[in-house]
Amino acid sequence: MADFKFKILAHDKNSRARTGMIRTRRGDIETPHFVPVGTLASVRALDSADLEFLGAQCALVNTYHLHLKPGDKLIKKLGGTHEFMNFDKPLFSDSGGFQAFSLGLAREHNIGKIGVFPDQSKNTGVRPRSNLPGLDPGKNLAKVSGKGIEFKSVYDGSRHFFDAEKSMEIQSNLDADIIMAFDECTSPLSDYGYTKTAMIRTHRWAEQSLKYHNKDQAIYGIVQGGYFNDLRDESTQFINSLPFDGIAVGGSLGKTKADMHEILEWVIPQLDGRPRHLLGIGEVDDIFECVARGIDTFDCVGPTRIARRANLYVLPASGGNGKNKFRINIAAAKYAADPGPVDANCRCFVCENYSRAYLRHLYEARELAYFRLATIHNLWFILRLMEKIRESIKNGNFAELKKEWLG
Amino acid sequence: MADFKFKILAHDKNSRARTGMIRTRRGDIETPHFVPVGTLASVRALDSADLEFLGAQCALVNTYHLHLKPGDKLIKKLGGTHEFMNFDKPLFSDSGGFQAFSLGLAREHNIGKIGVFPDQSKNTGVRPRSNLPGLDPGKNLAKVSGKGIEFKSVYDGSRHFFDAEKSMEIQSNLDADIIMAFDECTSPLSDYGYTKTAMIRTHRWAEQSLKYHNKDQAIYGIVQGGYFNDLRDESTQFINSLPFDGIAVGGSLGKTKADMHEILEWVIPQLDGRPRHLLGIGEVDDIFECVARGIDTFDCVGPTRIARRANLYVLPASGGNGKNKFRINIAAAKYAADPGPVDANCRCFVCENYSRAYLRHLYEARELAYFRLATIHNLWFILRLMEKIRESIKNGNFAELKKEWLG
Repeated sequence: MADFKFKILAHDKNSRARTGMIRTRRGDIETPHFVPVGTLASVRALDSADLEFLGAQCALVNTYHLHLKPGDKLIKKLGGTHEFMNFDKPLFSDSGGFQAFSLGLAREHNIGKIGVFPDQSKNTGVRPRSNLPGLDPGKNLAKVSGKGIEFKSVYDGSRHFFDAEKSMEIQSNLDADIIMAFDECTSPLSDYGYTKTAMIRTHRWAEQSLKYHNKDQAIYGIVQGGYFNDLRDESTQFINSLPFDGIAVGGSLGKTKADMHEILEWVIPQLDGRPRHLLGIGEVDDIFECVARGIDTFDCVGPTRIARRANLYVLPASGGNGKNKFRINIAAAKYAADPGPVDANCRCFVCENYSRAYLRHLYEARELAYFRLATIHNLWFILRLMEKIRESIKNGNFAELKKEWLG
Repeated sequence: MADFKFKILAHDKNSRARTGMIRTRRGDIETPHFVPVGTLASVRALDSADLEFLGAQCALVNTYHLHLKPGDKLIKKLGGTHEFMNFDKPLFSDSGGFQAFSLGLAREHNIGKIGVFPDQSKNTGVRPRSNLPGLDPGKNLAKVSGKGIEFKSVYDGSRHFFDAEKSMEIQSNLDADIIMAFDECTSPLSDYGYTKTAMIRTHRWAEQSLKYHNKDQAIYGIVQGGYFNDLRDESTQFINSLPFDGIAVGGSLGKTKADMHEILEWVIPQLDGRPRHLLGIGEVDDIFECVARGIDTFDCVGPTRIARRANLYVLPASGGNGKNKFRINIAAAKYAADPGPVDANCRCFVCENYSRAYLRHLYEARELAYFRLATIHNLWFILRLMEKIRESIKNGNFAELKKEWLG
């Protein structure tokens, strides 16, 4: 059995928020915690020493991407992902099932959550990873069946097939401490029938994942069912009945944030005391709202991706609020001669050393240093926010903190 | 007068190599020293804290580029380049004259030393800074006359005119500690007549630079004359006769390294005790050969640029030699599963923390972290080499060190 424990240290009186500690074989994670995403065994623009310095207690790596590049077998040969990226704290890995959405329905439905396609190079200053002729936007690159998911590689167009057994094998090779059951992530535009079919597949794959997974790794089951109350109920009860170490809530999470909150209100009260992870979510307001609804951990590329696109967080004391999403756009002309830090109330390395004017210049010039500094600032901001949230739950003033931030 | 002194601490017995200390208003530079290039007030992929950690005692910024982006007047308003980039050590600035070559004859003659053009994005993983329709390779973007140099901006195609007075004004706004006289850098393919005309202009601009420059800044004169013995003699005598704080040797430095060595042998013996800077040179063998010929400081984008293109330095004890230019190509397939550091004998942060396999993966994936880690390694390597060279001159064994490295 995996060396894995979860202890709740305090509950909020006015909400389902709770603070606790996940114990893994590679150390502890204080919850609620934001899990930085290192898709290809690197949180984009940072190295592991940066993560350490930022106080990230864990990170998440991506099964699909690492399977393709550099290959999970190679990573295993090199001692696993921790050794590979020189990060000794707990790692999560996703199951690859999210790509059923990101490479499949998201493209077909022309909706968000895709990171590495050519047309995005305009915003990040970074050249696309692939310019494959076959990868025209709108083309579904994933085919899902009862057996599993067939993917087209975003790197070379080659075909790959994942089922639960394969996903568990790859995640075992990667050697993350907390792995995810193989699932199908559906689209907000998927109808009831499709969502139900996908959920039934996901449930079968959940059982197979429990059978095939490396027993030294902790494994989370994933609740699916889209934005359909009865399907979410069914999925929650089914996944909660299985001996997973934790429970993740997967997408589709609906079309709006209100939908997502409603889904969590359906799902969370039916879960037992195991840790709960929300997949792929993590803007500031989401964190408050989802912690309030009982989520313990989040992973999201949002804070790091928006950093690369000139959006830097600011605290409420510095003008951040729900309306501006706690962001300033450092590319704005008004910052060109601004000698102040991004956020005068932030104590991060970037705010203590560099001005808005300098960061704007680096961004405008697409200097590589920009991407790292911006990422450091935004991750520092989110990780310190999580600290404040944990503290507030312990001290019984989470509601006040939430009101102070969201109004 | 500028607060500027140069003290020679030891001479090598077998060559013109010497070690000393340049004292500037912002601190000391031990010589021989390699000056990292931060074209746009950022050594590409690094921040100032990285430079500090690497032990760089100075850096060089680029007059032409900072004039265009973000503008020298803005930098002045923000307290100068040191304040802007948060770097408190001595800064050099070039004069803009190099762009007469890099934007002009280098393009017309289709030869090297250009950094920011679209076709180079293939190698660096970074999107080009400009995609101006007018910027086709081969088109001369600089027009030189007796009055000065008219440049086309690489950023927006706009026209700009530099003369000695303007160059001094910009360099004053940038507030570097050591500035360069305005000069014209010619091409190795320029003929005797053109090179002589350019030299005569450069001499007049040298006098004007001394007249117009901010007297709080130390200023170096630039010896020109291409690969023509009599012109170099004439230029050396003329520049050496003027009250500059130091002397730089400018290009063209000929078509081969042997040409460059010959030029230094013409020029250096005619110079007095002032510090000597070699513009734009700095590969490993160049450093040894040019230190041996009496050069005190070098600036060069080479070590950082080749890092971004997968070329990482290795010490002689790790297989580095003149033939492989002390480099390995980290993109090579043989490093895919190599768990060792880039250089087992290197003590840099990168070699102490990351494997060849990981760096190769980051490079292949064009992960942003690669560019910083590779740059850190190569700059550490060169800066430690300079330390060894200084030590060897003090200890009287420079010749042995040079032989150990170059054979």
